[in-house]
Amino acid sequence: MLYQTPYYAVIFTSLLQDEHEGYSLMAERMEELAIIQEGYLGFESARNELGISISYWTSLESIKNWKEQTDHLFAQQLGRSSWYRYYKVRICKVEREYEFGEKK
Amino acid sequence: MLYQTPYYAVIFTSLLQDEHEGYSLMAERMEELAIIQEGYLGFESARNELGISISYWTSLESIKNWKEQTDHLFAQQLGRSSWYRYYKVRICKVEREYEFGEKK
Repeated sequence: MLYQTPYYAVIFTSLLQDEHEGYSLMAERMEELAIIQEGYLGFESARNELGISISYWTSLESIKNWKEQTDHLFAQQLGRSSWYRYYKVRICKVEREYEFGEKK
Repeated sequence: MLYQTPYYAVIFTSLLQDEHEGYSLMAERMEELAIIQEGYLGFESARNELGISISYWTSLESIKNWKEQTDHLFAQQLGRSSWYRYYKVRICKVEREYEFGEKK
């Protein structure tokens, strides 16, 4: 399914700490918070050693709202540094896209 | 390491065919073609069922040059559809970024 361009992507790449208890639950909760957010389009992720998670949004405003909620989520926990030894966040405008085949 | 914004990202998400002989070699070759290209900044990938590969570039011109070379590579092979049952390409402008910790 193609989205209407332009839209926005948040690329989150990360390396986990060797110990990262509670991480999976927190990652699920972050995604749940995204899905119910206005302006949410989709979510994709994969992890080997490096993890890549990308969320897609209609506007920068939606991303800002989601970030406020996830910041609150992290503030209630041990904090990002207890799970991640590295992460990088990129805010991107998706200008063009094309696809082949069906995702399902 | 932070890159100077704005720069560009090509997000490639894909699902493989059950049979995908020669795929790994082709994926390596695509990355090799990227690395020697002017304007190349970096490459990140992860795959579970869904594969996500992202290449980073200083300009749209660099991406166009790389695409011409990879199209040529695919034309010499059985073609994308012999490996992929789905793929999607997104061309994005990275507007902001921030990071925590060290990637190495």
